[in-house]
Amino acid sequence: MKRASNRSRCPINFTTEIFGDTWSFLILRGMVTYGAKTYSDFLRSEERIGTSVLADRLVHLEKAGIIAKSVDKEDGRKVAYSLTEASLEVIPILDEMALWGTATSDDPKMPPASFKAIRVDRAVVLKAWRDAVQSGSAFFVGPNSVVSQLHLGA
Amino acid sequence: MKRASNRSRCPINFTTEIFGDTWSFLILRGMVTYGAKTYSDFLRSEERIGTSVLADRLVHLEKAGIIAKSVDKEDGRKVAYSLTEASLEVIPILDEMALWGTATSDDPKMPPASFKAIRVDRAVVLKAWRDAVQSGSAFFVGPNSVVSQLHLGA
Repeated sequence: MKRASNRSRCPINFTTEIFGDTWSFLILRGMVTYGAKTYSDFLRSEERIGTSVLADRLVHLEKAGIIAKSVDKEDGRKVAYSLTEASLEVIPILDEMALWGTATSDDPKMPPASFKAIRVDRAVVLKAWRDAVQSGSAFFVGPNSVVSQLHLGA
Repeated sequence: MKRASNRSRCPINFTTEIFGDTWSFLILRGMVTYGAKTYSDFLRSEERIGTSVLADRLVHLEKAGIIAKSVDKEDGRKVAYSLTEASLEVIPILDEMALWGTATSDDPKMPPASFKAIRVDRAVVLKAWRDAVQSGSAFFVGPNSVVSQLHLGA
């Protein structure tokens, strides 16, 4: 994958140049937790991203090789976004961001399954999460979700 | 710590609202890798942050409780920034960002010690890194650096 710019060759800078804005990580979050893949899926997120900002970020992430665009299999009129091999590997970053946010925020709000996952060995969670997303499921949804693999249900 | 805004209570959003820009993670990087603490330290980074953007980001991070401002012990005319307990815990996020950037970028550039650290058990690296920063050292510098603790020198 090409570098995003010439700011420096530091790998933390590389990651920051791709995800260093207020929405890119959240778009990925929607994909790997709830299996978001269409415009309407992304617009439905609680943080209420605007349509034009969403369009801009999707183009940016597609150019960076983080997501791939295709015609939705279920509805040929819709465009669907999927993760690439590179973005699958973003899961550990999102996981650490969730852990830090949970520990630092006064009032984090997550489904009970997320809190249960914190007590499971991190390597096990990450492997299950990767497997889930790779097979078309996501953390919370799909037949191979992390919740079902690790029995994190209520 | 108070929430940064009301966008949502998702912990990944919480983290994104604090660090979701092109510089905040890099300011933290400078602190935990090379022990950057003054304006001139931050301005010296390869990515060439502008003075006004730096000032803006430092105020933002201070308000968010990520860094604390004080008078430099070595030079009373200078202002020095130190990490808080919350920002010490950002190290695992930066670590994952470094791993992803290293794996994804065509030409990452890091000191040899960083590449050696990738082959060490992650929990060991993170503990050494936290200990280093807490004792006033950083990943690469100081008597208690990660490099010296884990014998990652040439």
